Amino acid sequence: MSVIDKIEKENDAAAVDRDFLEQFLLGTWADVRRTSRALAATPEMRGIPGLSKDEHRARVLEQLKLLVAHGQVHRAFPTAFGGLADHGGNLAAFQELIAADPSLQIKSGVQWGLFAAAILHLGTTPHHELWLPAAMSLETPGIYAMTETGHGSDVSAIATTATYDPESDDWVINTPFRGAWKDYLGNAALHGRAAVVFAQLITHGVNHGVHAFYVPIRDHNGHFFPGVGGEDDGLKGGLNGIDNGRLHFDHVRVPRTNLLNRYGDVDENGNYSSPIASPGRRFFTMLGTLVQGRVSLDGSCVNASKMALQIAVTYGNQRRQFAAPGQQETVLLDYQRHQRRLIPLIATTYAQTFSHDVLLRKFDAVFSGADDTDESRQDLETLAAAFKPLSTWHALDTLQECREACGGQGFLAENRLTGLRADLDIYVTFEGDNNVLLQLVAKRLLTDYSRKFKDVGAGTLARMVVEHAADRAVTGSGLRRLGQNVKDLGSTARSVKELRDPEMQRELLTDRVETMVEEIALELRDAKKSHTEADVFNRKQNALIEAAAAHGELLQWEAFTEALAQVPDEDTRQILTWLRDLFGLHAIERNLGWYLMKGRLSAQRAEAVTAYVDRLIARLRSHAQGLVDCFGYGPEHLRAEIATGVEGMRQDEARLYYENLAASGHSPVPENHNV
Amino acid sequence: MSVIDKIEKENDAAAVDRDFLEQFLLGTWADVRRTSRALAATPEMRGIPGLSKDEHRARVLEQLKLLVAHGQVHRAFPTAFGGLADHGGNLAAFQELIAADPSLQIKSGVQWGLFAAAILHLGTTPHHELWLPAAMSLETPGIYAMTETGHGSDVSAIATTATYDPESDDWVINTPFRGAWKDYLGNAALHGRAAVVFAQLITHGVNHGVHAFYVPIRDHNGHFFPGVGGEDDGLKGGLNGIDNGRLHFDHVRVPRTNLLNRYGDVDENGNYSSPIASPGRRFFTMLGTLVQGRVSLDGSCVNASKMALQIAVTYGNQRRQFAAPGQQETVLLDYQRHQRRLIPLIATTYAQTFSHDVLLRKFDAVFSGADDTDESRQDLETLAAAFKPLSTWHALDTLQECREACGGQGFLAENRLTGLRADLDIYVTFEGDNNVLLQLVAKRLLTDYSRKFKDVGAGTLARMVVEHAADRAVTGSGLRRLGQNVKDLGSTARSVKELRDPEMQRELLTDRVETMVEEIALELRDAKKSHTEADVFNRKQNALIEAAAAHGELLQWEAFTEALAQVPDEDTRQILTWLRDLFGLHAIERNLGWYLMKGRLSAQRAEAVTAYVDRLIARLRSHAQGLVDCFGYGPEHLRAEIATGVEGMRQDEARLYYENLAASGHSPVPENHNV
Repeated sequence: MSVIDKIEKENDAAAVDRDFLEQFLLGTWADVRRTSRALAATPEMRGIPGLSKDEHRARVLEQLKLLVAHGQVHRAFPTAFGGLADHGGNLAAFQELIAADPSLQIKSGVQWGLFAAAILHLGTTPHHELWLPAAMSLETPGIYAMTETGHGSDVSAIATTATYDPESDDWVINTPFRGAWKDYLGNAALHGRAAVVFAQLITHGVNHGVHAFYVPIRDHNGHFFPGVGGEDDGLKGGLNGIDNGRLHFDHVRVPRTNLLNRYGDVDENGNYSSPIASPGRRFFTMLGTLVQGRVSLDGSCVNASKMALQIAVTYGNQRRQFAAPGQQETVLLDYQRHQRRLIPLIATTYAQTFSHDVLLRKFDAVFSGADDTDESRQDLETLAAAFKPLSTWHALDTLQECREACGGQGFLAENRLTGLRADLDIYVTFEGDNNVLLQLVAKRLLTDYSRKFKDVGAGTLARMVVEHAADRAVTGSGLRRLGQNVKDLGSTARSVKELRDPEMQRELLTDRVETMVEEIALELRDAKKSHTEADVFNRKQNALIEAAAAHGELLQWEAFTEALAQVPDEDTRQILTWLRDLFGLHAIERNLGWYLMKGRLSAQRAEAVTAYVDRLIARLRSHAQGLVDCFGYGPEHLRAEIATGVEGMRQDEARLYYENLAASGHSPVPENHNV
Repeated sequence: MSVIDKIEKENDAAAVDRDFLEQFLLGTWADVRRTSRALAATPEMRGIPGLSKDEHRARVLEQLKLLVAHGQVHRAFPTAFGGLADHGGNLAAFQELIAADPSLQIKSGVQWGLFAAAILHLGTTPHHELWLPAAMSLETPGIYAMTETGHGSDVSAIATTATYDPESDDWVINTPFRGAWKDYLGNAALHGRAAVVFAQLITHGVNHGVHAFYVPIRDHNGHFFPGVGGEDDGLKGGLNGIDNGRLHFDHVRVPRTNLLNRYGDVDENGNYSSPIASPGRRFFTMLGTLVQGRVSLDGSCVNASKMALQIAVTYGNQRRQFAAPGQQETVLLDYQRHQRRLIPLIATTYAQTFSHDVLLRKFDAVFSGADDTDESRQDLETLAAAFKPLSTWHALDTLQECREACGGQGFLAENRLTGLRADLDIYVTFEGDNNVLLQLVAKRLLTDYSRKFKDVGAGTLARMVVEHAADRAVTGSGLRRLGQNVKDLGSTARSVKELRDPEMQRELLTDRVETMVEEIALELRDAKKSHTEADVFNRKQNALIEAAAAHGELLQWEAFTEALAQVPDEDTRQILTWLRDLFGLHAIERNLGWYLMKGRLSAQRAEAVTAYVDRLIARLRSHAQGLVDCFGYGPEHLRAEIATGVEGMRQDEARLYYENLAASGHSPVPENHNV
């Protein structure tokens, strides 16, 4: 019996333990997730497709009030203010709201995750006492006014100024030109009453960089206060339940104490002080709270991918199309192409589920103070910057593939996929543009790399890198075997056996990241000598971003592998192991060119990768429904007509009709039988 | 001077001849396109973002009446009915309507390209006289009732029946079960008065296969006639200006002469006759008119890609973000990643522009009768089936990449991209699901392949294929050089020179298609012997579809290359040659793994591919704006705020502000200068 036949045989009796797996996938904050998901399914929380922008905005505002009433949104706040100081649980609950309506989710994120959280994290006790209760209760709908029309990702360059006037002991908030209008701000077009405005703090003629100021903007009748102006961002590609808009300030005055002064303060003489001496470090510390948004989006998008797959796999398992002569029509998911389109997406969604839980635990440790060091904060930020791009893009890809896999049904609003995709579109560029975030990750990888060699001169480094690379290519443990170029006929089985070895997968994935980083580091080091570093950095930008994405995938693979060790049931572990193998090998397959060019895989081993990916997909086909059902969404969450079993009923009705017709003897005869 | 330096030098003075290129890109029916594009830009034809579904539907219906008034939609009809019998021009005009509103475009396609065209092509003179004028004038808004809830791509299996009743000399149209409801039909929810209904024709107990019947469905008050029912498909992911809906028939009677009887008729005794003896061939002949829709969508999607790129490149050339210390902020399109994201999309859009013109000329030759043979019809269908998937997917990819490249601006409805993408989403699965179409192409490739060997026994064939493949790998002209595995240091320049050679590109692209087809053919031949052909076919489905896509790309590359020969201006030809090289080499780069595995490229040559792609993109960067401006869309077509130059003005205003501030001596000093 060949190795492949043996693998296939193992599969025969296997099935996932659904009760276990559903609970396992909910992760560390399973109970919180269940509660929030149940709330998200209630009729009053659901999105209603086809509402006008104005109706949708009004509905979402009311839903935010319900969230307050349900005590859903105060979890992360201090106990003194009625919260639970539960940081991980708070984001877990938030993420589950995507099943209700992404507009509701993001608008609640603006109110509590950005506006109120900025008061909490950037302000001090007097601010908390003064503004936090009304922000938490939604008495003050608030705005997080950071991004400007002219500056999104580069926050340090925003142009709004806050200039201290010692005469009146006031801040003068000012918008100097059109590009400095605050833009894309949730709550700004209609509902916001106050804003946390980010501006360049200027006192005594010195610019101390970006700080946050509490600025009331509208009175209780919804009219702008003098000097404040703005406009509606209008209709968007999605998330139309949120009233995004623009704000500008014409020398608007607020008291000196409206500076949220945790990381920088000004006294009544206009003297600036800060607990953080370095302006650069101060800036990054103040922006550190933004990581919360990235962590949230990572988990939210994994949930969206799950919903999409549960809908498309359910339909793909019922819908039939094309028959071989004399046979029943084929179920869509029995087509290889359909499997190739959907099953690797399931594998990635599982990997991202596990990696998100790793990220959320890390976030909780830092924000709860259990492990809050400079290093752990940096690690958290790098991890979030690596995962958020991968999961937000994956969600769009998954929603789109699922939409297409459901054909015309996928295009109907009643089947949910297009609406979710439209709403999630912006997730890939907000809270940190995906490409910018991956570049941050790449810079961290380069820093870590150069730190390893920091006491070594450039010449030595260059030599080391070359030797290291050569070493990997030819003698790297394990890799040598895979990379060998000899003809070993009939060794597909052996190749497959090696590819199944998790250490081999880890080595291939790790090696790619490290080699890419090494190559770039070497070029940058050379360029530094010739003062062309910025040019070379730009010429390597694409490669840098790809290295960062590969790093993120490696970490997801690691998280999946660690999760496998926690699965007690053997069948479940076996099936999830295939799924992990598929995730890893599919990543390798997408970069086969690299592995071949670098001599990490021989041509024959490379062919074995594709052959084994095909095999794994075929093996997992019978488990696809079980794997997506364990995502745990019911019809009340999915709200997709085609995921209700209706297609199966239609198929049964059709089959019965033809059977009865045949039994009656009245079936028409095909013409060609007649000739 | 190295080859690469020489290439770079060539670029210095080059610029495209814009007047020539804009005209050239409009192709064979340039004048018709200009007229239709001008109409599409008029205020009354434009789509208005944010209309409710009902308002949008009403507006589009009125716009259809304006199309009639402008004589825009009768071009393809016979001169006897007031048309021009201009088939190519008709589709060219139709395609330009996408700049107005895709809903308007597709609803006009339903009325004249499907409903009226079916009367014309499937009916005979009495039908033309009776129904064509009212269909053409929109007096009878019509429905093309082919697809059913249970059957889309597999039209031959639809379940609606038309049974001849000799007693009354009527057809009885009937929907036997829910899956047989006609579905997704434009005009069905509201406006349609009559439908061309596709049903299984049954007479004397024999099913003669799918035929088309003219069935009145609503009276002049918009009420269904007895026995007809239906429902609204409701809100969709896009195209909400079209009233898609469902129809069902409960033993609805229409006269015998309502059968559109060009390809099959029944006399008053119920005897069936057809000019086409084979039921299979008859079916495909009747469905042949569907090719019109595929050709239309191909060109329409190329137009959408053009609009998206003109918007995103214009913005990317004005918007700035992040500055090196002491320098002006960098223009987005100067970032390598931004170039990598957008410039290959320009190359593909050019290739598809030229390949679409080839397709449209072919279509015109067939439909005008200038070259209407079985073979040319088959070629046309294969070409359309190859191009429509590539261009519709490319449009979605392009719209999405452009949306992301414009950040938050890209998400605003006022910048057009999200709306176009939502509308075009369905283009990839309607008028032939992309995956199903590519499978048709693959089957044709296999047929052509086996025809080459049809007199050769299976054993001989297998031997020939193996020899042929081995031959290619090792001794194929040219490929041997690229595939060689020797160390030739410093030969990047030579590799690049070879990659620039169009014959080399052609050979690499051709070889991949042929080898993939050969490999699959061989496996299928073996499988035929062991009666597992269907299984093997399914196991190779993914590879088949990829071979078909590769074939389509090769044909697009050929069309681009042929177009180059028609460019008189040397600079323009040079720049377009780089663009063609980018198109070809980018396709090779995406499949580097294959070329390496099969020994067609050595590792070193493979690295040269990526290096040269990078180089080409950098070279083309300064031409990007010229290349997209030649798409010829004005602000009245694009209707995207960010493509109006507004961002450039904002940047100028900001720069001037800072310059004046500096000149005034009041610029705040950065804190770190103060320490």
